[in-house]
Amino acid sequence: MRVLILAAGQGKRMNSKIPKVAHKILDKPMVNWVIEVAQKVSDEIAIVLGTGFDIVKQLIDTNITIYEQKERLGTAHAVMCAKDFLKNGDNVLVLYGDVPFISYNTLNLLYNTHLEHNNDATVLSVVLDDPTGYGRIIKDSKNRLIKIVEDKDASVNEKNIKEVNTGIAIFKSDKLKDSLNKISPQNAQGEYYLTDVFLFFDKTEVIQLENNVEVLGINDRIQLFEVERKIRMEIMKKLMLNGVTIVDPYSTYISPDVEIGMDTIIQPQTFIYGKTKIGENCDIGPLTRIKDCIIGNNVKILRSECELSEIKDNVKIGPFSRLREGTFLEENVKVGNFVETKKTHISSNSKAQHLTYLGDTYVGKNVNIGAGTITCNYDGKNKYQTYIDDYAFIGSNTSLVAPVKVGKNSLIGAGSVITKDVPEDSLALGRAQQINKLNWVKEKKENNSKGE
Amino acid sequence: MRVLILAAGQGKRMNSKIPKVAHKILDKPMVNWVIEVAQKVSDEIAIVLGTGFDIVKQLIDTNITIYEQKERLGTAHAVMCAKDFLKNGDNVLVLYGDVPFISYNTLNLLYNTHLEHNNDATVLSVVLDDPTGYGRIIKDSKNRLIKIVEDKDASVNEKNIKEVNTGIAIFKSDKLKDSLNKISPQNAQGEYYLTDVFLFFDKTEVIQLENNVEVLGINDRIQLFEVERKIRMEIMKKLMLNGVTIVDPYSTYISPDVEIGMDTIIQPQTFIYGKTKIGENCDIGPLTRIKDCIIGNNVKILRSECELSEIKDNVKIGPFSRLREGTFLEENVKVGNFVETKKTHISSNSKAQHLTYLGDTYVGKNVNIGAGTITCNYDGKNKYQTYIDDYAFIGSNTSLVAPVKVGKNSLIGAGSVITKDVPEDSLALGRAQQINKLNWVKEKKENNSKGE
Amino acid sequence: MRVLILAAGQGKRMNSKIPKVAHKILDKPMVNWVIEVAQKVSDEIAIVLGTGFDIVKQLIDTNITIYEQKERLGTAHAVMCAKDFLKNGDNVLVLYGDVPFISYNTLNLLYNTHLEHNNDATVLSVVLDDPTGYGRIIKDSKNRLIKIVEDKDASVNEKNIKEVNTGIAIFKSDKLKDSLNKISPQNAQGEYYLTDVFLFFDKTEVIQLENNVEVLGINDRIQLFEVERKIRMEIMKKLMLNGVTIVDPYSTYISPDVEIGMDTIIQPQTFIYGKTKIGENCDIGPLTRIKDCIIGNNVKILRSECELSEIKDNVKIGPFSRLREGTFLEENVKVGNFVETKKTHISSNSKAQHLTYLGDTYVGKNVNIGAGTITCNYDGKNKYQTYIDDYAFIGSNTSLVAPVKVGKNSLIGAGSVITKDVPEDSLALGRAQQINKLNWVKEKKENNSKGE
Repeated sequence: MRVLILAAGQGKRMNSKIPKVAHKILDKPMVNWVIEVAQKVSDEIAIVLGTGFDIVKQLIDTNITIYEQKERLGTAHAVMCAKDFLKNGDNVLVLYGDVPFISYNTLNLLYNTHLEHNNDATVLSVVLDDPTGYGRIIKDSKNRLIKIVEDKDASVNEKNIKEVNTGIAIFKSDKLKDSLNKISPQNAQGEYYLTDVFLFFDKTEVIQLENNVEVLGINDRIQLFEVERKIRMEIMKKLMLNGVTIVDPYSTYISPDVEIGMDTIIQPQTFIYGKTKIGENCDIGPLTRIKDCIIGNNVKILRSECELSEIKDNVKIGPFSRLREGTFLEENVKVGNFVETKKTHISSNSKAQHLTYLGDTYVGKNVNIGAGTITCNYDGKNKYQTYIDDYAFIGSNTSLVAPVKVGKNSLIGAGSVITKDVPEDSLALGRAQQINKLNWVKEKKENNSKGE
Repeated sequence: MRVLILAAGQGKRMNSKIPKVAHKILDKPMVNWVIEVAQKVSDEIAIVLGTGFDIVKQLIDTNITIYEQKERLGTAHAVMCAKDFLKNGDNVLVLYGDVPFISYNTLNLLYNTHLEHNNDATVLSVVLDDPTGYGRIIKDSKNRLIKIVEDKDASVNEKNIKEVNTGIAIFKSDKLKDSLNKISPQNAQGEYYLTDVFLFFDKTEVIQLENNVEVLGINDRIQLFEVERKIRMEIMKKLMLNGVTIVDPYSTYISPDVEIGMDTIIQPQTFIYGKTKIGENCDIGPLTRIKDCIIGNNVKILRSECELSEIKDNVKIGPFSRLREGTFLEENVKVGNFVETKKTHISSNSKAQHLTYLGDTYVGKNVNIGAGTITCNYDGKNKYQTYIDDYAFIGSNTSLVAPVKVGKNSLIGAGSVITKDVPEDSLALGRAQQINKLNWVKEKKENNSKGE
Repeated sequence: MRVLILAAGQGKRMNSKIPKVAHKILDKPMVNWVIEVAQKVSDEIAIVLGTGFDIVKQLIDTNITIYEQKERLGTAHAVMCAKDFLKNGDNVLVLYGDVPFISYNTLNLLYNTHLEHNNDATVLSVVLDDPTGYGRIIKDSKNRLIKIVEDKDASVNEKNIKEVNTGIAIFKSDKLKDSLNKISPQNAQGEYYLTDVFLFFDKTEVIQLENNVEVLGINDRIQLFEVERKIRMEIMKKLMLNGVTIVDPYSTYISPDVEIGMDTIIQPQTFIYGKTKIGENCDIGPLTRIKDCIIGNNVKILRSECELSEIKDNVKIGPFSRLREGTFLEENVKVGNFVETKKTHISSNSKAQHLTYLGDTYVGKNVNIGAGTITCNYDGKNKYQTYIDDYAFIGSNTSLVAPVKVGKNSLIGAGSVITKDVPEDSLALGRAQQINKLNWVKEKKENNSKGE
């Protein structure tokens, strides 16, 4: 089976310069939701783009065939734009870029039924409380499609039918191609509708979907929110039943590819996006954002930002920490408030707990990084490495001017500027001697008051 | 038309030392919502204050006439306190300080109908599912008011009427004055009710409001929340339909005067208050607070605080940044984590990305402010300026003791304390030489263990 | 009356390695909610533990008697495990570890009725819209229990009864003991049900609960959330009616022991846990977490973390501040952005407003702590004290190497490392002289371009 995704629509009611299918849901563009489920059922995927061609093109994998629909002339016209993709002897599943939550299970059922019953086409329907505006499904007692009646053409009796066409369907490719050539535009705008092809088929079966969340379409930004919210809750309910505590799902945002282990607690106002994996028994949040991180067990992340980082067991992060790309924290590391790390490896049992910037840095094990430590890794042109060996103690307010190495067991005095390597077991100081000017303040005050 | 706002009530159920109308909704006191809509329909506005006179007085424009009601003797008594404001030959609109969401459109409709039909009074009514406690509207088929029946006086049939008096009404001023003199207190407390004046009018028309959100009153803090939530959602729905993505309106707080451009995304847990304007295609939030800022296009503000600042196109802010009053950021500026700015101008393409405080500072273009840079702008008495010219490079952990100038293209070594001006094209250093005491740590440990 | 809490269940549907009653609701383990209400009605409390015995044991007071139920053989068996706790001539109230919101008022009513009517047992019932799965209450017109019919044994008529057994009941201890010996297991698993004991009593009265929130049980993590949300709202409604403004209760988390004074405003996304007390007229949040703090009047805490701290009147904290254990702030203190305090006392009118770490520090009154100040309180082994006397001025980017004293009225120059005490009225400096290498940058560029 091949999959063809129709994603050329403008999405007028979105009121946007960005094409509708590029709008994000849980941090992932709508079109990518559809592509990902398509990739689970087929290796041969094509997409028809139109409005915002260049924007959407950049969002999709290179192994997806792209067709362009230059005019908006209806769904059948969109499929015709991809007619080279319809291969004789094969089947094609038609999906939509703005119907992003169709599930693998549904598509699988659709495909298996299509094959087993040797259908010409197999159409997915859904029952809506209010079917106004949708094409009604007229079928026989064996679920064979008789016809689809558009809302505007429906009789009073037909209008009462609540089973409607979702648009999602599988076709025998050659039958589809044949019939596409036969249909003609049905309205003043000269649009060709894909629903018209069924008239030419001998055997079209209707499969009725149970949960209508899967086929919710998105037409404006209020629906974008409402649908996202529904999906968000579905994702979280599954996690909760599997043993994750989500303290307040209404203020939690977890995207579908995230994995979370048993007895991990997700506190409110937390965002977990991308391909993040979180182990067991962690305490994450509140007020935390995590994207594309691999996190072990018993990790505590409080009120922090973490991106593209790997975090081993028993690490404590936050509050007010920021782990940037390329951060790697080994077991028992502590990263504290107002600390930023980037391209930095911190080995087990080391700590950087206050007001620190570590960039392009290797930190050995059992190292203490004092408050206010800054790695000066950038000279305006290039970035340089800082290497701090095991058991070193970096005094507070130290500047480490990279490239520089701090040896094992060495000690750096508070307030030092370290520009040269520090040998192991050594003390390094780089600061001026303190001078107390006795009574300076008092005398200045007296002089000032004399002067007045 | 003149507008008279009744705002003397105590708001007993608020359980507060602050008068009810001073409580805030979306960061704006309730009374100011009413005043602002009044100002759209008239230049002549008066307000009757009572409880918390001094607190409310401070909240309102000086061009609003204030009357004091010293005793709580009913709405008619409140109007009588402002009788000097009722001008013969003119009309007066009566509004209420605790009915803050009445719209300009409704008031306009009320006024135009009042004039066109040459009414003595024109009363705004609303239909409530549960009218218990409200005065029922008895009117004829031409929407002429026959009488208003208080809940406690209503017959069984009258109690079934769901159309109730909102209290909002326009009067011919002279007719109102005349009739105020004629009414007498109706209850044990000796209160005078404004609804009694209609008995003396020849022609009172009723206009029925469609959306009851506009006339929701607020009597306790639960209602304060519930009404705020409704208004909040109305504000956001309008923005969404106009092309702003609001990822989760339930956890977003936007006040009514905010303007936001197309395709800007407002992430959750974001607060946008005051007279803020945001351009197109920005990404704002999550976890961000913005008040009274002017923001350009393509700006990204992540997890930050911004107040009284101006931000040009393509600027990136956050996470954990704080822009305070008088911050001005030109195009392409980056302000990063744990950075605070105040009364600071940063020119295009300059960056201050880590652990920095810039106060009373001018930064030229293409400047790099290293991590941990601090402008020492305060000597305990006065504040002084720091001037950093174009293309300067400020090394990490630098202290700039103001007043001080750093010349164009100049370079400051990491960890320096800069107390004197730095000429252009020059290197400035203000730090001690590093000393490594070899094996100091080792020997100390050996001595310590000998001592034991 | 004695209280016996049954808390041995596994909570299979929680999908957890942690026993159900140890899961937290508003930051307090479920079992502790039950224990706390039990402690209000009795001094003699016992608990039956089973699954996760050691985990739950650690959560509970030492003066509570613990019994172990080694096998899960039903509620009657659980009570039998604690039979030593049942004292002749006394009464025993049976509560459940996973029914955490039963109120003092209800228990009191139950107890008083039990005594007054000299009942053998007094059972708490509740009416449910959907009673499926619960034991139905069959009683006479005088509220005397006839029997409890399990759902699976109920006739069609009995299934229509909506009044169900909550399990909560008071018993005459000797009658309970007697009847426990008489019951036999009723099902294939060999479980003994406590409901069977009523068959042997002469006089069991049913008391019907009005508000079913009190007896909501928790069986999976979705219910854990739903029940927490309900309780959360109840707690906040009470606060709101008492004069606390909670801007958005849906995104606010306040635990039951918190006290808040009149006219204090709690902004959204705020967490207030533990035994926190907050005075009047404060402005707390948004984006703030407070645990176990004592806070005075007119305090403003914006976007900060506060734990185990005491804060006097008129203090301003935040944004991005972190007060850790042992912080004590006197009147009018200001703690600003990116500032951390721990075991630190700051006296009245002093300020630490930017990028500062104060640990193990005493700060006198009217002190100004400059931006970037760091107390170096840790040498890798021990922590040391910093003492800053009244009216001192600490210049920006100062390192205070503890133990160290800064005298009254003294002044520390920006960027200094202070290792020795500073006498009062004196100026202390510990920084290198600034050197400007004129045209260094220019020449370097020229050399570089020559080299190319």
